[in-house]
Amino acid sequence: MTGVYISDVGITRFGRRKEPLQTLMYEAYENAVSTIEPKFDAVFIGCMNPDEFVGDSNFATLIVDYFGLYQTPSVRIDNAPASGASGQYEKVLVLAGEKMSTLPTSMVTKILSKLIDNYERCTGATMPALAALVTRRYMHEYGLSREDLALAAVKNHHNGTLNPYAQFQKEITVEDVLKSKMISDPLHLYDCASISDGACAAILTSKKTDVKVAGIGHATDFLSLQYRNSLTSFNATKVAAKRAYDRAHKRPKDIDVAEVHDAFTILEMVNPEDLGFFKPGEGIEALVNGKTQLSGELPINTSGGLKARGHPVGATGLAQICEIVWQFRGEAGKRQVPAKIGLCHNIGGFVNNNIVTILESC
Amino acid sequence: MTGVYISDVGITRFGRRKEPLQTLMYEAYENAVSTIEPKFDAVFIGCMNPDEFVGDSNFATLIVDYFGLYQTPSVRIDNAPASGASGQYEKVLVLAGEKMSTLPTSMVTKILSKLIDNYERCTGATMPALAALVTRRYMHEYGLSREDLALAAVKNHHNGTLNPYAQFQKEITVEDVLKSKMISDPLHLYDCASISDGACAAILTSKKTDVKVAGIGHATDFLSLQYRNSLTSFNATKVAAKRAYDRAHKRPKDIDVAEVHDAFTILEMVNPEDLGFFKPGEGIEALVNGKTQLSGELPINTSGGLKARGHPVGATGLAQICEIVWQFRGEAGKRQVPAKIGLCHNIGGFVNNNIVTILESC
Repeated sequence: MTGVYISDVGITRFGRRKEPLQTLMYEAYENAVSTIEPKFDAVFIGCMNPDEFVGDSNFATLIVDYFGLYQTPSVRIDNAPASGASGQYEKVLVLAGEKMSTLPTSMVTKILSKLIDNYERCTGATMPALAALVTRRYMHEYGLSREDLALAAVKNHHNGTLNPYAQFQKEITVEDVLKSKMISDPLHLYDCASISDGACAAILTSKKTDVKVAGIGHATDFLSLQYRNSLTSFNATKVAAKRAYDRAHKRPKDIDVAEVHDAFTILEMVNPEDLGFFKPGEGIEALVNGKTQLSGELPINTSGGLKARGHPVGATGLAQICEIVWQFRGEAGKRQVPAKIGLCHNIGGFVNNNIVTILESC
Repeated sequence: MTGVYISDVGITRFGRRKEPLQTLMYEAYENAVSTIEPKFDAVFIGCMNPDEFVGDSNFATLIVDYFGLYQTPSVRIDNAPASGASGQYEKVLVLAGEKMSTLPTSMVTKILSKLIDNYERCTGATMPALAALVTRRYMHEYGLSREDLALAAVKNHHNGTLNPYAQFQKEITVEDVLKSKMISDPLHLYDCASISDGACAAILTSKKTDVKVAGIGHATDFLSLQYRNSLTSFNATKVAAKRAYDRAHKRPKDIDVAEVHDAFTILEMVNPEDLGFFKPGEGIEALVNGKTQLSGELPINTSGGLKARGHPVGATGLAQICEIVWQFRGEAGKRQVPAKIGLCHNIGGFVNNNIVTILESC
């Protein structure tokens, strides 16, 4: 694998957006490049389900057409943004986005439930229901309190107030979380990432820039939650992380800043542990003592995370990359932290198709 | 790009199949490998729309789970089978498949119409309607007769009778084509590829085998048909072909056998011309005089093509690759032709996201 570098990144504000998905992607692209020079060897598009969310198939062609990138090879990838560039091309545009708000919430829930194993789905499992199971087990094993869990949402909402692209830009309290609507006991509304629209863009190049893709790890796990060997630790994260660390020649202690998949608050306990930042159960103490805050030893989700920045499903992985690039370049405004090495952790399905990307400032 | 070779290929019989899509893919995989040694660096899955056709999202995870390929990185690619392997991995499993027969035909037509530009779709355009427009124009420009056009279907059905994996294994006549139900004037039922289920598998490796991927070209075009610069020649094919020929250091006259996208009979006139095999309008004479038959100078669609082998949309590209590999290895049975260099041409959308792959026997 030859060196892959990132030259430019851009993002739209996440949230309920009126524009069609292709327009959001173009906005992200315009935000990525100051001077638009539309010439790429290929375009890779991360988008989970445009067929159902916005009613367009053949989305890769639609995008290159809309962007005026006439004749450029273009591919839509369902579940692995950024894994496409590996030496075949010199300059690649990666776009990612999703528009979920066009459908009623019940339809969105139904579409997202198709990510779950058929048997578990038919017994009524939804994404929040599975996350609730994991939460209960983690509480049982490590003594996590309901109040402490809420701190993950409180922290990420605080970071979101400092991110002009975040869907939610207001502070919340532990009390707000516990008073919000119950979604799947013990998870309340404020424990869950919201339905969102948004897009991101990144330009990858084989020429050296100040941001290097140091290593990518990708791993899968059983589709069904019942077959996993633990409810409080996920192999797809652990294996993907090991692969990324090995390829990048880094260890968990080398990471200065991380964007971690927090579609549900409990995942901000489990995932940092699986990434090797904390031992099992010690994610609680790290959160409570502020280790993962902006001022802490290892800031996590400086962008606001999926919880506050928003989670338009196909856009999330690239949004994490954007945040780390801004942190490296000192462009993160009021949420700036010192960082030379950053890690992004993204999840497909319910924690069974995971990608860890390690970026290095150089 | 380091060398990419093909070690094994497998396919299922195409047609209306009762098994779920993952089972069809496993059958193709078992047909590819004599001794199953389930160890791959990655799995790439070509499948257009499992979300709607079979109601499963997260299909990449579902497949590695079902195959027992625990922890293997897996990605679903919407529209570019075989373009995934480029040196990052040493041994990659490529699977492709689609199961379209679970839904009523009207639903399938609706889903496939989402591949078309929104404006043209809203004016009533369907895939057969666009193909009919192209047919009328080609008839007008080059004097193609309705009877001669039917010969493409007649030839491919004949080849299908020699392919045990083909959906249709019966001879048809020009009269059969012209007597079949009118779909979109002047195209009859037998001018159109049918709804189909099926799957294919191929193992790609960086170690030298007897089949080399000599070059791949990929190009896009305007989504909308009205913006193309011709109705009888398609830029996405011409540019993809040029890119593939250049990378493979081959010319059209070097090709011994070709699998060409013939979802509609007219495409077996237009595509070989765009691939440089014949001059514009000369595809008629080539077909009428048998140049593209099994015994001709350049056999096209020895497998039966999309018309007779079947066209489970996501499986078609890899099915073409399988056929060329069998031709190289002398495993094509009664449809065997002499071949050292082969070309596959596949289409996404209505001829706007096209891939040309040149394989070389070595």
